[in-house]
Amino acid sequence: MSPNESINDEPCPVARSVDVVGDRWSLLIVRNAFDGVRRFGDFQRSLGVARNILSDRLRKLVNAEILELRDASDGTAYQEYVLTAKGESLFPVMVALRQWGEQHLFEEGERHSVLIDKHTGKPIRFMGPTAQDGTAVLSAETEVQKVK
Amino acid sequence: MSPNESINDEPCPVARSVDVVGDRWSLLIVRNAFDGVRRFGDFQRSLGVARNILSDRLRKLVNAEILELRDASDGTAYQEYVLTAKGESLFPVMVALRQWGEQHLFEEGERHSVLIDKHTGKPIRFMGPTAQDGTAVLSAETEVQKVK
Repeated sequence: MSPNESINDEPCPVARSVDVVGDRWSLLIVRNAFDGVRRFGDFQRSLGVARNILSDRLRKLVNAEILELRDASDGTAYQEYVLTAKGESLFPVMVALRQWGEQHLFEEGERHSVLIDKHTGKPIRFMGPTAQDGTAVLSAETEVQKVK
Repeated sequence: MSPNESINDEPCPVARSVDVVGDRWSLLIVRNAFDGVRRFGDFQRSLGVARNILSDRLRKLVNAEILELRDASDGTAYQEYVLTAKGESLFPVMVALRQWGEQHLFEEGERHSVLIDKHTGKPIRFMGPTAQDGTAVLSAETEVQKVK
């Protein structure tokens, strides 16, 4: 990408995604939303983020149609931020970040939260890229075919 | 996380990963590294990023053992930044970002780059979280078991 080119002209889907969710607070807000956090004050408390930054990121996530504003589910005057279908489909991104962290950012024996399948109570399986026949592929076995 | 708590004390693997790679430039540098970019000037040109920001992010990625510095493969005096095994294992994160972007950030018919399996020339399969038996799980079917 040249400096004068908007990332939205990028034919690279990674770059477009990064432009939308590629910052620390946005990723943590989305993580919390998956975890059931819905209200401004709850995001603020759980993240320890400044109110102006939180407002900015929530507004961007709403504009990007990742979160939507709804009236409070309990009939109070609060507004709630809830993942849209587009936001819900960031689940693989969250799982990929989680699994990389589990593998590489904890000491042997150091405890961390675990994402479990509610039906079985067991952790979900390691998620990795696969070929069309379902066999695992390493990055070296793939290549990016650029738009010509 | 309370404001006074380092994210490195977080028992949440997503938060730790986000702390290490959760910014736009780091994610784009890692993407480029997967794409075969190795030299400072090539990262700079392809990303259109200021030199001081690029230096800072490359240094952080080396410190985090995601990239390592090597002498140039062609015998010149250049140094090259190459993904370590830890860096290579960010492949699922890149694929998850790519697939979300492909699904949600392109108009119908708008062209984008494609990640193909070199053995078959076909795009890799959609990657999603699964239970231990291999069945797909939605986020609503999972929960985060916190460290007590």
